[in-house]
Amino acid sequence: MVVAISIRPVKCVLLDISGVLKNGKQAIPKSVEAFSKLRASGMPVKLVTNETQETRRALASTLKSLGFDLQENDITLPCPAAARYLKDERLRPYLLVHPNVREEFSDVDQNSPNCVVVGDAGQNFTYELLNDAFRVLLNVEKPRLFSLGRGKYYREENELVLDVGAFATALEYAAGVKAEIVGKPQKEFFVSALTDLNMTAEDAVMVGDDVLHDIGGAQNSGLQGVLVRTGKFRTGDENHPDVKPDAIVDDLAEAVELILNSNRLK
Amino acid sequence: MVVAISIRPVKCVLLDISGVLKNGKQAIPKSVEAFSKLRASGMPVKLVTNETQETRRALASTLKSLGFDLQENDITLPCPAAARYLKDERLRPYLLVHPNVREEFSDVDQNSPNCVVVGDAGQNFTYELLNDAFRVLLNVEKPRLFSLGRGKYYREENELVLDVGAFATALEYAAGVKAEIVGKPQKEFFVSALTDLNMTAEDAVMVGDDVLHDIGGAQNSGLQGVLVRTGKFRTGDENHPDVKPDAIVDDLAEAVELILNSNRLK
Repeated sequence: MVVAISIRPVKCVLLDISGVLKNGKQAIPKSVEAFSKLRASGMPVKLVTNETQETRRALASTLKSLGFDLQENDITLPCPAAARYLKDERLRPYLLVHPNVREEFSDVDQNSPNCVVVGDAGQNFTYELLNDAFRVLLNVEKPRLFSLGRGKYYREENELVLDVGAFATALEYAAGVKAEIVGKPQKEFFVSALTDLNMTAEDAVMVGDDVLHDIGGAQNSGLQGVLVRTGKFRTGDENHPDVKPDAIVDDLAEAVELILNSNRLK
Repeated sequence: MVVAISIRPVKCVLLDISGVLKNGKQAIPKSVEAFSKLRASGMPVKLVTNETQETRRALASTLKSLGFDLQENDITLPCPAAARYLKDERLRPYLLVHPNVREEFSDVDQNSPNCVVVGDAGQNFTYELLNDAFRVLLNVEKPRLFSLGRGKYYREENELVLDVGAFATALEYAAGVKAEIVGKPQKEFFVSALTDLNMTAEDAVMVGDDVLHDIGGAQNSGLQGVLVRTGKFRTGDENHPDVKPDAIVDDLAEAVELILNSNRLK
């Protein structure tokens, strides 16, 4: 059931990956066909994700193997953005990240850390590594904590699991530091994806399963936001106290129909 | 160096354990003698701690082996208080606690959990167990989260390590639930210790190394609070924006001198 009949016509589409295209290692039903249909429409598409357990290359490869027709540079990820920033600011991070993405920071000096970067480290969120990160924050004069996204949880196969936001919040509390976000819902992150497409926020719609970080973040950045009922979506998300999606649809297939139909109506 | 010359005379003394009597498994220098001197003065003493890695029996035994002259029932701990409350309210907890203290909850029904109790689980703060606790909170209609204290960190041997408060905060953020504290700085916890001694808040002073939870908590409950510079004390704690200790001293030895001297002055 589509709650809104139409949205404002758009010139490009940003899509979340986890919970929209796939859950864990499985494509969400009808999402491969919907993605192809969107591509066939000729509209530029960018995948804007807070995924921090895979490099861009690995993620593109996974998605291609599931049948999605896309390239590496169709994907915008927090790790490369964070690595760029750290290098520019000459910051030396302690990385509390998934081993898969350490290589994204290979150009960044990590000796005598003076800041912490926390990503979705998954199984690597151990007491020891959390303590190590905490001590870096406590031992430097002006501690900075960078959180790659601020998600609360996400769906992994059939279960919900804690996301980076929970652990960033733990470190914030213990060390008395406010985390700086790199990724959704940060405005700069949406803007960088749009800039790659040569588009502006008012041209764009974001499709995601996270009412706060996908939809709220997009809307605060000037984009429209369409919420899907797949992935981490839970009953009640459609009545979020702070965020009112421009439309709520069952899945990507319905989102693509809505977007293409709304463009036809213009 | 003692900042305050004296405090108001008192009739009883509450002491924190970790960071005041001992660090990890080592007695803090001069603390055994200071404790004996306090005992010898005849003033009732109660050890009020958020320790949740040991039962009362084990903790008393550890302290006795270090030379402290005390009994089990000189100690007030969060676990027995929490177990009592859960049983009275017929709540069925998922226990994210240290294996050593599970036995304190042996009388409490733990089938089909409808709430979560988080203590200082130490090495048991794994991604899996945190996820399990999180899912309990997400899957019940009226989730309740009980945090055994709300400490940010404490000193273990030579290192600072994350305390229960960091993990309670992570669960709060992810599940959208406000934790209810059992332990310091909760007023009921101080009051229960004082009731055991047949004393009131105005008769008492709390000695601790945690400016917020020992000193702030005591003062909010009507007790005086003396901060020691041992344990987790860090430069800057003496100028806390919200808490002004009644006195700041180097260690328990100085605290005992201060208390006994202040009583002589009355």
